[in-house]
Amino acid sequence: MRKFMAEDFILSTETAVYLYENYAKNQPIIDYHCHINPREIAEDKVFSGITEAWLGGDHYKWRAIRACGYPEEMITGKESSDYEKFEAWAASMPKLIGNPLYHWTHLELKKYFDITTPLTPKTCKEIYEKCDSMMKSPAMSVKNIIKASNVETICTTDDPADSLEWHIEIKKDKDFTTKVLPAFRPDKGVNIDKAGFADYLKVLGASENTEIDCIATLLAVYKKRLDFFAEMGCLTSDHGLDYLVYSPCTEAEADAILKKALAGEAVTQDEADAYKTFLLFFFAKEFKERNWIMQMHYGTTRNNSIVNFKKSGPDRGYDSIGAYDCIRNGLLFLGKLEEMDSLPKMIFYSLNPIENAAIDAMCGCFQENKDGIKSKIQHGSAWWFNDHLEGMRDQLKSFAATGVLGNFVGMLTDSRSFLSYTRHDYFRRILCDYIGNLIENGEYPYDLEEAGKMVADISYFNTKNYFGF
Amino acid sequence: MRKFMAEDFILSTETAVYLYENYAKNQPIIDYHCHINPREIAEDKVFSGITEAWLGGDHYKWRAIRACGYPEEMITGKESSDYEKFEAWAASMPKLIGNPLYHWTHLELKKYFDITTPLTPKTCKEIYEKCDSMMKSPAMSVKNIIKASNVETICTTDDPADSLEWHIEIKKDKDFTTKVLPAFRPDKGVNIDKAGFADYLKVLGASENTEIDCIATLLAVYKKRLDFFAEMGCLTSDHGLDYLVYSPCTEAEADAILKKALAGEAVTQDEADAYKTFLLFFFAKEFKERNWIMQMHYGTTRNNSIVNFKKSGPDRGYDSIGAYDCIRNGLLFLGKLEEMDSLPKMIFYSLNPIENAAIDAMCGCFQENKDGIKSKIQHGSAWWFNDHLEGMRDQLKSFAATGVLGNFVGMLTDSRSFLSYTRHDYFRRILCDYIGNLIENGEYPYDLEEAGKMVADISYFNTKNYFGF
Amino acid sequence: MRKFMAEDFILSTETAVYLYENYAKNQPIIDYHCHINPREIAEDKVFSGITEAWLGGDHYKWRAIRACGYPEEMITGKESSDYEKFEAWAASMPKLIGNPLYHWTHLELKKYFDITTPLTPKTCKEIYEKCDSMMKSPAMSVKNIIKASNVETICTTDDPADSLEWHIEIKKDKDFTTKVLPAFRPDKGVNIDKAGFADYLKVLGASENTEIDCIATLLAVYKKRLDFFAEMGCLTSDHGLDYLVYSPCTEAEADAILKKALAGEAVTQDEADAYKTFLLFFFAKEFKERNWIMQMHYGTTRNNSIVNFKKSGPDRGYDSIGAYDCIRNGLLFLGKLEEMDSLPKMIFYSLNPIENAAIDAMCGCFQENKDGIKSKIQHGSAWWFNDHLEGMRDQLKSFAATGVLGNFVGMLTDSRSFLSYTRHDYFRRILCDYIGNLIENGEYPYDLEEAGKMVADISYFNTKNYFGF
Repeated sequence: MRKFMAEDFILSTETAVYLYENYAKNQPIIDYHCHINPREIAEDKVFSGITEAWLGGDHYKWRAIRACGYPEEMITGKESSDYEKFEAWAASMPKLIGNPLYHWTHLELKKYFDITTPLTPKTCKEIYEKCDSMMKSPAMSVKNIIKASNVETICTTDDPADSLEWHIEIKKDKDFTTKVLPAFRPDKGVNIDKAGFADYLKVLGASENTEIDCIATLLAVYKKRLDFFAEMGCLTSDHGLDYLVYSPCTEAEADAILKKALAGEAVTQDEADAYKTFLLFFFAKEFKERNWIMQMHYGTTRNNSIVNFKKSGPDRGYDSIGAYDCIRNGLLFLGKLEEMDSLPKMIFYSLNPIENAAIDAMCGCFQENKDGIKSKIQHGSAWWFNDHLEGMRDQLKSFAATGVLGNFVGMLTDSRSFLSYTRHDYFRRILCDYIGNLIENGEYPYDLEEAGKMVADISYFNTKNYFGF
Repeated sequence: MRKFMAEDFILSTETAVYLYENYAKNQPIIDYHCHINPREIAEDKVFSGITEAWLGGDHYKWRAIRACGYPEEMITGKESSDYEKFEAWAASMPKLIGNPLYHWTHLELKKYFDITTPLTPKTCKEIYEKCDSMMKSPAMSVKNIIKASNVETICTTDDPADSLEWHIEIKKDKDFTTKVLPAFRPDKGVNIDKAGFADYLKVLGASENTEIDCIATLLAVYKKRLDFFAEMGCLTSDHGLDYLVYSPCTEAEADAILKKALAGEAVTQDEADAYKTFLLFFFAKEFKERNWIMQMHYGTTRNNSIVNFKKSGPDRGYDSIGAYDCIRNGLLFLGKLEEMDSLPKMIFYSLNPIENAAIDAMCGCFQENKDGIKSKIQHGSAWWFNDHLEGMRDQLKSFAATGVLGNFVGMLTDSRSFLSYTRHDYFRRILCDYIGNLIENGEYPYDLEEAGKMVADISYFNTKNYFGF
Repeated sequence: MRKFMAEDFILSTETAVYLYENYAKNQPIIDYHCHINPREIAEDKVFSGITEAWLGGDHYKWRAIRACGYPEEMITGKESSDYEKFEAWAASMPKLIGNPLYHWTHLELKKYFDITTPLTPKTCKEIYEKCDSMMKSPAMSVKNIIKASNVETICTTDDPADSLEWHIEIKKDKDFTTKVLPAFRPDKGVNIDKAGFADYLKVLGASENTEIDCIATLLAVYKKRLDFFAEMGCLTSDHGLDYLVYSPCTEAEADAILKKALAGEAVTQDEADAYKTFLLFFFAKEFKERNWIMQMHYGTTRNNSIVNFKKSGPDRGYDSIGAYDCIRNGLLFLGKLEEMDSLPKMIFYSLNPIENAAIDAMCGCFQENKDGIKSKIQHGSAWWFNDHLEGMRDQLKSFAATGVLGNFVGMLTDSRSFLSYTRHDYFRRILCDYIGNLIENGEYPYDLEEAGKMVADISYFNTKNYFGF
């Protein structure tokens, strides 16, 4: 019997404990993909309390509370008090056995609030009061949380049209040493089949005082934005796609499709796929030239609750896993980019965990490069619905079995919350446990220095080197 | 070294044993989906012997014996003696290591016959004689087996045209306190593309003295049958589909397709999908109004052995896993039902285990409801080919990781045999072992009362509350 | 803490060790599918050194070294020295934790070179010198390796047009008692959509002094080649398909498609599928008559790196997993063959591990036969990218849960290397560990003789009996 989430949490062997304590625990955090708001960093926001910080935007938690039968009013409503919302969360907690929310919550309670008591209806009031009061204090401002979390680098997620004003603001504070870099997320200009596309292109054009009326002007604006993002320290892009596309078309064809959309006409699925493919080729080439990393997140079906999408928009906890068999297109895309000598470093994340093995096999076909880049094409850490203990273990095992685990760039939070840095700790524990087990089982030599070096690499150094932070 | 299938079978930790002994073992059984024959309950059937009871209709066992090279005559033939058939089964047994049949068989030997010796060719004769003689005795009549199994509620599987005469008969026996309720399985009227559809509609119409000649009369008859089933205590439907459909059509279109089929014309795949979608929308709405549960079983490819289907019909052990990527349609179906305010409580079972994660993510999008229903949309227990130790573990882990395990309605037998209630015991052991491991690993607090309550809920109380038995 | 890859490697229980030592370790090897070159056996080749033997053709290793950032020149180039290439391999090694290459390498070092030191940059020179010198010695000629590996039977992979001259040559050496049999791999004549098809048919025709100008002459030639292969002891075919096809057509239709291809016209995807289906039906029937085994390898997407395919051709480490949902076609193909009474013994291998459960359920539909063949249709051992510890465990578990593990024909190397026989040892350890665990967990009786017999069967006897070696 091991103690609940104690120092050796997840570390089931002595070797795992040793590796974690000596090579993982104290590594700085590089959070190379997340959704936190740079403005809140710039303004060094202090939260109104624990409910805002924990439940203000976290659709993982909302889904769980909904499943526990609470009315929406107590989850995202405006009439319920902060404490009522916290109570609903506390009451849901004990049922979340085997869910990462259970572990994330208690890792955060311990790390940021020094609380080791499980959150239950019985402990709800006491925990709320302590957390709420601490959360309101300037000692737990956004910058202070980041500092306390040993975060060296953060990549936010930014629209190409963004002025990056908050990033500029952040840089002004010389006492705040964490690098906060933008990441280039051009989805709104790629998703030609989504509502608001034409309006968005106006916004994008305005960012460079250009009217985007054809593919040439679009690409010209994008190039300028890429340059601007590069100046601001950007080193990575991020792409959210329901599925990987591969429908090559000429620039003239892309131009015709774009003009159709700009004229307010609906484009067909085939046209949308062709336009998207064209843009992704363009971006890949630009990224390659700039030595950026291209991150591909796919395998989603979003906004499935039509009722709630109409009511409250995207990112409210109504998304799901979709898109099977994207590998074919992924292989064609990579093969073509390589042929064009335009293949950047890439990381693939599928929301569908059944693609794990296929992604790892795919990546293995395109590792050749003249720059000595290690595992140039990578399988990203278990993402979103897969970002749980078993899901992360499965991703590690698959990466190791078919790729070269020693080169893995490891964890990111993908989070909207400033209290999520403990997910890096969660990942490192799982990693050390995995490697510790292999060693203790006689599957890998008992050379703690070598193994420790690998742990440190996967926790920190590989990311630093691969991205060039 | 643990003893073969002893008291602590599957319970690998002390905590698991404690949870099982105190919170799981003695809970009554609610078997909310199975294929047993209500007539055999009403008549309180006494079997002709162990071979009829065990091998008379169990296509799981038939498949295994076939794979061991025995001629069909010794499996389902009429010339072979009961003992010869039993011998073929006993000879196959030792090879079934890692197969749930191995465990089910020995759980049944222990529970119903007090036999703890493994079944092998050597023990065959002795075991046969004891079981056969016991099975023939009125002490092992169907009702006595059900009583001895602590079964509180059974839902059979019934055609809407059924008179439910045997259910009426069962109710007359006031000494038999197990509730035996019908479940509504309208597949024959849904599968417009299967042979015999038009003939079946005659039978269905006759049940309400109506000639079904259009969609309006069909729906009218269905409504009457739904009312009749409701009067008889029905609280759930069950649907067997090769794949989830989503091709909405108007009532006029459904009417035209139905008339085509009634006229003996073949319908296209698209027409069949549209008609099925139309009916499933209709049923969902009706179930919602009646507060019934809608169970969806899909992911099958049936009757693959053409030779044997021609020879002996369906359900003879020639079915397989099929249908990938049903989630897209599932999401659309659920989204539309929610928009129409017609979303009933639903349970999804895919025969393809690769859909586990996607099902759990799908369910999580539609939990919102005003009635405080917990996990209104659920991922059903591992089904059929997945109903083995690893398969059940995988389903539990996936449910827990992406949903709220504490709300799970748990196990059902899906069986044609009266000796299968031990599958509930199998499930409860796996559940207690899973939870026990999480506690002993420090992943969940050591609070046996809380954990025990959850075990009891998943074993019994959640089902009772969710279905309203 | 267990020692690194010691005697009990992978054998985590006493029972596993006992089963391995007494029933697995010393069984002869039947390697019923591999890619070694019969000429090298006939000529009793002595390698130029360890680099040729290990890195000369092993695209598994090439992929790993590429992923470690080494330039292609140091992997497959002509300018780099043998030692430089070995160094790149040794430097990649420590990063391959969790990869089967790590285990295969060290199993080979131990078995063939008596080296138990891990291969690392530090040990590189010493290990190279010892292995290189041993490898060059006639004591490690191909025949001597085979003898030392206790290999009883080898099935190579041969084109139907092959003269089998090297097989004839091998048979002349009466002192070499390992049976080396051809296997019939007609892919080049099946893949009508691949470049070089028409030219290949000229070569195939020439093997029987026939001009192949229609389907009738093609089948006539194939029959003669089948007879010739049968005379040479062939007992199995092997088929490599990207996906399972099922598009039945008449002989006249197949004839027309063939003629189109012979005339140099491109065939459509539908035509190619129809032609392939026609040929596979033909072969299946012929195999059934000859009592051969038909092995189906599918689920691949090959030559994904266009650049490298153009540069260096196939089988250079640029292949990947593809093809989802082949089961539908597999079921139809099997159902039709059974109906035609032309269903041979078959083994299915999918490169996509997500098909495991579906393959096992598929096989279970077609086990019926009058010849007492056990598990006539089998799920083959974990293949290629899945041929790692977890992948093999998963295949065993899936086979056991849905099929009859006691009938499994077990392992093959699928290798191009003469040093790969240790993969049989790897498999046997995993098998014994799996069975040992079930016994020690109380899931299977502690009867070591029975369990041992099963281990021996799966390691050796089942293969011998199923193939009829």
